[in-house]
Amino acid sequence: MPAAALTDFSRLCVHTVTTKPWSLETACEQYAKAGVAGITVWRDTLEGRDIAASGKRLREAGLKIVSLCRGGFFPAADAAGRQKAINDNRKCVDEAAALGAPLIVLVCGALAGQPLTESRRQIAEGIAAVLPHARAAGVKLAIEPLHPMYADTRSAVNTLKQANDLAEPFDEFVGVAVDVYHLWWDDQLEAEIARCGRLGKLLAYHVSDWRSPTTDLLLDRGLMGDGCIPLRQIRGWVEAAGFRGCNEVEIFSTRLWATDQNQFLTQIKQAYLAHT
Amino acid sequence: MPAAALTDFSRLCVHTVTTKPWSLETACEQYAKAGVAGITVWRDTLEGRDIAASGKRLREAGLKIVSLCRGGFFPAADAAGRQKAINDNRKCVDEAAALGAPLIVLVCGALAGQPLTESRRQIAEGIAAVLPHARAAGVKLAIEPLHPMYADTRSAVNTLKQANDLAEPFDEFVGVAVDVYHLWWDDQLEAEIARCGRLGKLLAYHVSDWRSPTTDLLLDRGLMGDGCIPLRQIRGWVEAAGFRGCNEVEIFSTRLWATDQNQFLTQIKQAYLAHT
Repeated sequence: MPAAALTDFSRLCVHTVTTKPWSLETACEQYAKAGVAGITVWRDTLEGRDIAASGKRLREAGLKIVSLCRGGFFPAADAAGRQKAINDNRKCVDEAAALGAPLIVLVCGALAGQPLTESRRQIAEGIAAVLPHARAAGVKLAIEPLHPMYADTRSAVNTLKQANDLAEPFDEFVGVAVDVYHLWWDDQLEAEIARCGRLGKLLAYHVSDWRSPTTDLLLDRGLMGDGCIPLRQIRGWVEAAGFRGCNEVEIFSTRLWATDQNQFLTQIKQAYLAHT
Repeated sequence: MPAAALTDFSRLCVHTVTTKPWSLETACEQYAKAGVAGITVWRDTLEGRDIAASGKRLREAGLKIVSLCRGGFFPAADAAGRQKAINDNRKCVDEAAALGAPLIVLVCGALAGQPLTESRRQIAEGIAAVLPHARAAGVKLAIEPLHPMYADTRSAVNTLKQANDLAEPFDEFVGVAVDVYHLWWDDQLEAEIARCGRLGKLLAYHVSDWRSPTTDLLLDRGLMGDGCIPLRQIRGWVEAAGFRGCNEVEIFSTRLWATDQNQFLTQIKQAYLAHT
C-alpha cells in the first residue's frame, strides 16, 4: 500500500550536496531556519573545518546528523590501492565519530574492466577490514546499491538484493541505504526492502526523482514529483519494513544548483509534502 | 569459458544506425565491399524506398538481412494509443516481410509515471495482438531488454529474466534479443542466457561497449574494446546456449558518426576480431 502523505518535516533530512552552492555553515543556518529536521553531511563540506566543532554547531542549531557521505570505493587494481581505500575509510569513520554521525554511506566502488564479481569480493574484503574500527567508534556502515549505469566505475553493487547479500553475513554495524533513484526500476525492490527490514539492516532512505528525459548520467536528478519514481509506493514498502528514520533528500542537479538555494529549499519542502 | 577470438567476418552483421550518416544504398555498397556478412536495417533508412527492391538490392550485394529495427513501444495512456502501436507493429511486420527480414527487434516501450508492471502487461498484450500477423508473414519478434536507465520511457523490460518471462508463454515466433550494452551488469545474465537458449528463444546478439565515462545516456556507446564489457565472456555464454547467428554491431555514437565512416567500418572489423 502506498504510504500516506507526509504532513510535517519531522523526518525531513537534506544532504548538503543537494544545496551544493552552500557552505556547511550556510546549510546549517538555512536548514534550521526552514525547519528541516536532519542533515547528511558530505565530506567535502568538512574540508578545512574543525570537525567536532562543526558537529556541535549542527546539533546546537537543532539539526540531527543523520549520516556522513561517503565512504567506499574499495576496489583497486592492486593491494596497495585497496589498502589505501581501507585507510581512507578508517579516516572517514574517525570523521563520522568526530562529527557525531552514527552512519557512513558507502558508495562501494568498481573498476572498469575488472569483473564485477571480483569487485564485489574486494568490497566485502574492504568492509570487513574497516568494520572493527567502525564498531569501536560506534559508527555503522550502510552499503548503498547504485544504479546499473554506474557499474563501470562507481559501484559493482547495483541491486538491493546484492546489497542485502553483501550485508547479511556482517553484524549490526553493516547495513544498507535504499535510494529510490538507483533502485526504482527493479522488480525485486519490494521483496528486497522487506528482506532488508527482516535482516534489521535498513539504515537509510534517500529520495529524489528520475526525470524524462534525463540529460546527464550523474547531475540531472529531479525534485520529488518531477519524475516517474513511485515515491509514495516505495516509502510504503520501506515503512512496512519497519523503517522509521529520516527521508533524506539527495539531489545532484546542475540545473537546480544554479537556482536560488533558498527558493530551492522551499520547493524541497513543498515537494516533500506533496510527492514524497 | 570466454569464447575464442573470432577469425573471420562470416558472422559479422552491422546495424545501419551504426553508420548513421550513410543511406541504405551506401551502407549496402560499403558493407558488401568490406566483407560484412549481414545487415540489420533500421526503419528510417527505408523511408521513401521501395522496400522489396531494397531487400533485393541487399541480397544481390551478398548481404544477409538479419533483422529490421525496430518495432515495439506498446504502452500508451489509452486504448486508442495502444491500438495505434499495434497497427504500427503490424505495418512493421509487413515491411520486414517485404524486405525479406526474418526478425523484428522490439524496443518494448514504457510510459513515464505508469507502473512498470502495467507497462509490461500492455507489452504482453501488444505482442499477443501482433503475433498472428507476424506468424502469417513468417516474421519473428525479438523482445530486447533495455538497460534500466531506459525504464522511464523506452522499455519496461530491463533484464533478460523479464524478457525470458515475457517470451516464454508465446510460440516460436516470439523470442529475445540479447544486447551486451543493456545487460552486461546483471549478475543473472549467464543463467538467463542459458535459460533463453533452453527455451529456444535466443534470436539475436548485439555488441558494442560501455565507455567510462559515458557522457550521454543514448548516444555515447563505444566500439568493442573501448569499454568495460566482458565481450568474450558473454559471447561464450551465448554460444554455449546454442546461438550460431550473427554478432550484430549496434553502436549509437555522436562522436563516431562524426568520423569518416569508411575508416570507422575498418575499425569495426578490427575491433570485431580483437575484442568481440
